[in-house]
Amino acid sequence: MKKNTSPRKLTVKGFQFAGISSGIKKTGGKDLALIFSEVPAPTVGMFTTNKIKAAPVKLSMKRLSGQKNCQAIIINSGNANACTGQEGMKHAREMTVKTAGALGISPDLVHVSSTGVIGVPLPMKKISRAIPDLVRYMSPLSLADTASAIMTTDSFPKVISKKVRIGKRTGTIVGITKGAGMICPHMATMLCYILTDISISSTLMERALKEAVDRSFNRLAVDNDMSTNDSVFAMANGLLGNDPIKRSSKEYREFCGTLSGLTYDLAKMIARDGEGATKLIEVIVKGAKSETDADKVARAISGSMLVKTAVYGNDPNWGRIVAAAGYSGVNINENKIDIYIGRVKVMGRGIGTDREKLAFRALQNKTVIITVDLGAGDKMVRALSCDLTEKYIAINAEYRS
Amino acid sequence: MKKNTSPRKLTVKGFQFAGISSGIKKTGGKDLALIFSEVPAPTVGMFTTNKIKAAPVKLSMKRLSGQKNCQAIIINSGNANACTGQEGMKHAREMTVKTAGALGISPDLVHVSSTGVIGVPLPMKKISRAIPDLVRYMSPLSLADTASAIMTTDSFPKVISKKVRIGKRTGTIVGITKGAGMICPHMATMLCYILTDISISSTLMERALKEAVDRSFNRLAVDNDMSTNDSVFAMANGLLGNDPIKRSSKEYREFCGTLSGLTYDLAKMIARDGEGATKLIEVIVKGAKSETDADKVARAISGSMLVKTAVYGNDPNWGRIVAAAGYSGVNINENKIDIYIGRVKVMGRGIGTDREKLAFRALQNKTVIITVDLGAGDKMVRALSCDLTEKYIAINAEYRS
Repeated sequence: MKKNTSPRKLTVKGFQFAGISSGIKKTGGKDLALIFSEVPAPTVGMFTTNKIKAAPVKLSMKRLSGQKNCQAIIINSGNANACTGQEGMKHAREMTVKTAGALGISPDLVHVSSTGVIGVPLPMKKISRAIPDLVRYMSPLSLADTASAIMTTDSFPKVISKKVRIGKRTGTIVGITKGAGMICPHMATMLCYILTDISISSTLMERALKEAVDRSFNRLAVDNDMSTNDSVFAMANGLLGNDPIKRSSKEYREFCGTLSGLTYDLAKMIARDGEGATKLIEVIVKGAKSETDADKVARAISGSMLVKTAVYGNDPNWGRIVAAAGYSGVNINENKIDIYIGRVKVMGRGIGTDREKLAFRALQNKTVIITVDLGAGDKMVRALSCDLTEKYIAINAEYRS
Repeated sequence: MKKNTSPRKLTVKGFQFAGISSGIKKTGGKDLALIFSEVPAPTVGMFTTNKIKAAPVKLSMKRLSGQKNCQAIIINSGNANACTGQEGMKHAREMTVKTAGALGISPDLVHVSSTGVIGVPLPMKKISRAIPDLVRYMSPLSLADTASAIMTTDSFPKVISKKVRIGKRTGTIVGITKGAGMICPHMATMLCYILTDISISSTLMERALKEAVDRSFNRLAVDNDMSTNDSVFAMANGLLGNDPIKRSSKEYREFCGTLSGLTYDLAKMIARDGEGATKLIEVIVKGAKSETDADKVARAISGSMLVKTAVYGNDPNWGRIVAAAGYSGVNINENKIDIYIGRVKVMGRGIGTDREKLAFRALQNKTVIITVDLGAGDKMVRALSCDLTEKYIAINAEYRS
């Protein structure tokens, strides 16, 4: 973490940031954030598949379908602006208009995200009053402030920066995200912003982003459950000055690899910061006939409440793991399955190995790796989860009080 | 409850029962149960769709595919006999052979169920030693003992008896079940035995049972998650002496109605006894275009951890309810949706009604009814759930310790 949170390392050419408190959160914490690119940047977005979409999501989806460039994103936490009817749409538009006014750019170049409680009108007066301040505080060194201001139940800001060699130049990709809280972003909003100075077309960026998100944030999810607000944005302002990346090039492969690594690391941060969680769980499913099979099994295990509580209780209850594999919808053969907790084989070809004392010890770690070998092929998938604790219940039973 | 637990009311012509302690459970609680019909009875079964099936489930499925009659079912709790390989199959067969021997009937007429921890060999010596005692204790008045002996984490035995008028006679249907623990029988085994003296063919009984289970136990489940052991058996010994029920008769409709009511009431008992639960949640989805749509929405809401924790915390957080509807996979229109908590309308046509104080009061009840009107048609479905509490975590984190 340390190496990523030094402000100097968290800059990316041509981007400025701000994060302040506007009074939306009762706690007085930061709740209004801004991302600004000095030039209009090709931008792509991926949004929740929930049929109930928050007003800012609807607005951004509409804008991105017409206009591929974007120059600023304003984000508030503490209020999701979802299920707020026509007034909610008006508020979302107003946020972009006020931001555009303060920045002196066209409102079409501004996007907006919200996260927090559903069904409560945005306190627009507070937000409108704060927007000029937000713009005044902008600085290339303030990415960490932005990461703080988008948090809801997160216990730490989530920022990662990576370098990529593009020809003779070194480009930067930074990403910030907020959880999700629980491992499955089952309504708890996940927001993510990826910013780079590398020149890449929006078409290629879209491909690279989809691949990266499918292998990271979408493997944090269970049953494709998504919140009303989930959004991932990627902006590429091209100020590195490289020749735009070409599709079948070595540079594109490097870019994709780095981007996938970055989103996986961000997803890991979300899992580690799961509401009330004490442990990160990584589920590795290998020996599958297809990636789809591996994915289904990994999701069933990583989403199982019984597996999550067993990990919390240091209980090497591999029966719950194999049973989750069994209801994943994949045609598995129990007599071919091996299961490991850490490096300890707890089930071999469908039968317990009686090594639960060793597995109990492996469960004491802060990161618990569960490996399931289906013995049916050579495909592999990784999924992320966290343990389920009494504190999760306390947090979510009292969320709004 | 009272009216159902008097032993005299819990008899059904020609059936005898026993429930004793054989030493499988460390606590010394009852863990071995027997259901016996004085004559071979047409019997049907519905079993888990989990690809990993416990040995007794495999054995019963095989027997029922050949032989439609059954005379006895032996059940143990405390050990699931799942993931126990060839030895597990041998043990399951041995249980039926020993029981058949003690009863003086053919092993083909005996079925077996197990529930408890996965992956541990059955203590066959203890079970074999106890079987003659089990048979000795059989009595027409001991159904409640059987209901106790099949319990695992259940806090009370679950028994219901209903009468049905069949022509000039009055038949009896009794049902016993064990949970499930949590609302979604997500691996926590659900066992249910339905016994009647009414004469009905196994073909018709199968139809009636499927309909009843689909509307009760299967609406306790999320995503068709099932344990390795889930089983529902129904035996009809015909000793009432009625003419066998015909398919398009008034009697068949009455029989189906009573059976569905019985399984729904049993499912309600399981929800109320959810591990650590303090409240029963009934989710009513109406105004749906189809029953399939209503079912999907009801399952998404009843399975949502965030809805369950909100009910626990008396938080009228209808945003979580509508968001769950939104990710159910049904094409819903938020501007047509009304949501009620108890009788309090908390959302009208997609917008909050600001009546949360009233809803907060409705959430204090031991039974919380959540009604969602999709405004898209006239189909309705009910689903059952319970709240999610810290105690659930404690129970499942320490299940085997």
